[in-house]
Amino acid sequence: MAHLRFFYVVLAIAAVAGCGPAPFDRVAEQQKLLQLDTEWADVASAGKDVDKAASYWADDAVVIPQGQPVAQGKAAIRAFVASSFAIPGFHIHWKSEPPEFSPDGKLAYMRGANDMTVSGPDGTPIKLPGRALTVWRKDADGQWRCIADIWNDPPRPADAAK
Amino acid sequence: MAHLRFFYVVLAIAAVAGCGPAPFDRVAEQQKLLQLDTEWADVASAGKDVDKAASYWADDAVVIPQGQPVAQGKAAIRAFVASSFAIPGFHIHWKSEPPEFSPDGKLAYMRGANDMTVSGPDGTPIKLPGRALTVWRKDADGQWRCIADIWNDPPRPADAAK
Repeated sequence: MAHLRFFYVVLAIAAVAGCGPAPFDRVAEQQKLLQLDTEWADVASAGKDVDKAASYWADDAVVIPQGQPVAQGKAAIRAFVASSFAIPGFHIHWKSEPPEFSPDGKLAYMRGANDMTVSGPDGTPIKLPGRALTVWRKDADGQWRCIADIWNDPPRPADAAK
Repeated sequence: MAHLRFFYVVLAIAAVAGCGPAPFDRVAEQQKLLQLDTEWADVASAGKDVDKAASYWADDAVVIPQGQPVAQGKAAIRAFVASSFAIPGFHIHWKSEPPEFSPDGKLAYMRGANDMTVSGPDGTPIKLPGRALTVWRKDADGQWRCIADIWNDPPRPADAAK
């Protein structure tokens, strides 16, 4: 019986050791999410593939663009992307900071700096920088998707000079 | 020995059963967080107690106010709150939507609608509505604190009418 009792003890210890938060490599996950975000910024920067650009948001995501109506859900987000790409002289790129995670590594938030340009009435490029906050969810398929996305304006140069 | 073996089996089953996400009552936690947020909005609306208003943010929180510099950390946030309360005719209130959580119930995000008023040059109240996104962390003491807070402008009425 001794070896059977040993088996149960090992089982109990293994079970207890397996408890607590699931294994989650914070640094590796940060790199993974930042890489995904960089890939997304490049797709958006190219300004061509609406479906690919929209694919980084979850189907139930919400986008809250500065000064524009809220886009809730993939269809509204896709329309928002398409209309953005159609703006004369539109170009966007962004760079994000390393994300922070929930202890289980399933929800993350990330700050970013947007670099947007559109053409002014006379064709001169107008720079529209922005500060962004995105929330990301690791879905059941292991894929990170953006579920909430908002940005706003930095102080205007005139305000900053005051 | 039989009862000892039984003990080990029960221990193993109990340990396995105790695994997985920690118990987390989503609806109860939503109510708790919304109630905290409502309390916060009332403190901010009173416009008097800077320390109390700042206490709902974590020490390492970041506030990204529309058109204003980013406030990172409690000292900067406290200064932001104090300067906001000092704006002539300043009044703020907000209402948030039920939060969404990470599976472990330790990180949450919440949308909100801000209702801000300031005095114009001639003393007439100017309404400055906003759309907000807040990220909340449940700290080791069991207290929810806001760790990221951003808002922006809705479409201007002139834009909306276009």
